[in-house]
Amino acid sequence: MSEYQPEIDPTEALRAAFRRHASGVSVITLTSAEGKPVGFTATSMTSLGANPPLASFNVASGSSTWPSLCQATHVAIHTLGQRNLALAQRMAADHTQRFTPSDWSFGAHGLPILQDATAVMICSIREIHNVDSNAVVIVNILEGLTGQEDDALLYYNRRYMSPGRALN
Amino acid sequence: MSEYQPEIDPTEALRAAFRRHASGVSVITLTSAEGKPVGFTATSMTSLGANPPLASFNVASGSSTWPSLCQATHVAIHTLGQRNLALAQRMAADHTQRFTPSDWSFGAHGLPILQDATAVMICSIREIHNVDSNAVVIVNILEGLTGQEDDALLYYNRRYMSPGRALN
Repeated sequence: MSEYQPEIDPTEALRAAFRRHASGVSVITLTSAEGKPVGFTATSMTSLGANPPLASFNVASGSSTWPSLCQATHVAIHTLGQRNLALAQRMAADHTQRFTPSDWSFGAHGLPILQDATAVMICSIREIHNVDSNAVVIVNILEGLTGQEDDALLYYNRRYMSPGRALN
Repeated sequence: MSEYQPEIDPTEALRAAFRRHASGVSVITLTSAEGKPVGFTATSMTSLGANPPLASFNVASGSSTWPSLCQATHVAIHTLGQRNLALAQRMAADHTQRFTPSDWSFGAHGLPILQDATAVMICSIREIHNVDSNAVVIVNILEGLTGQEDDALLYYNRRYMSPGRALN
């Protein structure tokens, strides 16, 4: 097809495609074996069906959170709005600086619950599938916390963004 | 935390969270055992690492495309821009009406390649993990086609949307 340029390098093909693809942003938290709060910003979190309610997310097995995830039984998935931009940035930066003393508390199943997300899903870890140096994590949703509404936080073309106009 | 309302029904908790979460939109195509083009609109497609380049997407095992996916070896993942709104809607509607005679052709590995997507990733199916009545599909990216740029197509709060302003 004449309108396409071929890209034979598969890593470059992935990069070109994902620069053109937008994602919602969430923060996933859990408790380390030492009882400390750990977490990270994820752009891969997605639904895996509503009945029973399941979600999935992807994580690099070299990430700072990976050792805790391997021994954890539960995670909290926080969906973010544009008011949570600083939280998304902090949870993607230096892993020793991700939790401030004042913006979270321990909740159900000992999970660190961050303040002011648009929603929280309390989940049990069901399956972890290792795929090379990454993993797909599948969780059961057990219950939730519904927060104040806000425009969803997006990640697109290496920037955080808000949604624009409705097309339909 | 006082700003949250508890939601004890897990399916309602999932629905409330995903109404607040935005997704990018892609169309995934493959060839049926009879050699016909089949495909569907996906909001779950995401990267699973760049080295090696991998992606994942979720699909209901009751969907019209599921029997073809179970016997297929390859898929084409098309990332969509806002110019592709009608394509996204058609590929989510009546499965007998998804391919028009003029807007696609067979490409690498016999895959149906749709015209005018923002990018296409040509993929081999690596793993399929069944999870209740859904499945997680993991693919290797083999090569790509880079299309004309466009604002990414989003799905958010049951509407298709374009991205808005950058926040950082």
